[in-house]
Amino acid sequence: MPQLAGSVFVPQGHTAEGCATVREVLGRVGDKWSVLVIGMLGAGTHRFSELQRSIEGISQRMLTLTLRQLERDGLVERTVYPTIPPRVEYTLTPLGCTLLEPVMALAGWAETHRSDIETARRTFDTRRSTNGHSAL
Amino acid sequence: MPQLAGSVFVPQGHTAEGCATVREVLGRVGDKWSVLVIGMLGAGTHRFSELQRSIEGISQRMLTLTLRQLERDGLVERTVYPTIPPRVEYTLTPLGCTLLEPVMALAGWAETHRSDIETARRTFDTRRSTNGHSAL
Repeated sequence: MPQLAGSVFVPQGHTAEGCATVREVLGRVGDKWSVLVIGMLGAGTHRFSELQRSIEGISQRMLTLTLRQLERDGLVERTVYPTIPPRVEYTLTPLGCTLLEPVMALAGWAETHRSDIETARRTFDTRRSTNGHSAL
Repeated sequence: MPQLAGSVFVPQGHTAEGCATVREVLGRVGDKWSVLVIGMLGAGTHRFSELQRSIEGISQRMLTLTLRQLERDGLVERTVYPTIPPRVEYTLTPLGCTLLEPVMALAGWAETHRSDIETARRTFDTRRSTNGHSAL
């Protein structure tokens, strides 16, 4: 097993507040919908309606909230063009672009190991139900 | 801005069920607590109480749930030693080890860009309150 010299999560000399922010940042950028939105914007600028069509299963409210949080974090830029009706476009900021590589690596892992995980889940659930335990 | 030839999220020829699983896997492995638990176990085998002490802010219930889900996904192995009281240890499986690299890359990004994100949030919140809008 790979051994890590230390944990990046509790860096020496950092404040509790700093660690909390790292946890919060992880919670945000590792969020399922954020990852999908960042992935879509990694392919180029998109309008709200294009994102909603492309990200299967996301509600209008959840997409609005995800984009707002990514904008607040400085990862996504929202541009309103004064047309009739107004055109609103979303694009990755330079900071958002730096997040593409680790996010795409995580998405690639999920795609590569999807069937391993499905198999593990079936095995786990079968063992649990055979033993008379609930799945959770 | 980096351009991606295609999205890994909606791979050609995959079923809707397959895409849903990738989203679900992303939701799981990108979850804040999962990332922290995987990071801790990347440094070696740990007991429940050690994980709880090291991961600031996690409740007993949330750690139990996170470990159970990681075990179900085949990422973590739980071993019970028949001592009095029983000793329960958690370790990454070989599949879990393959997840370490992308997860650590994401955690490293969060640590590196923590202050950029804090600055962006302050700017966003100030602009919002100046404009008389709510922060969300």
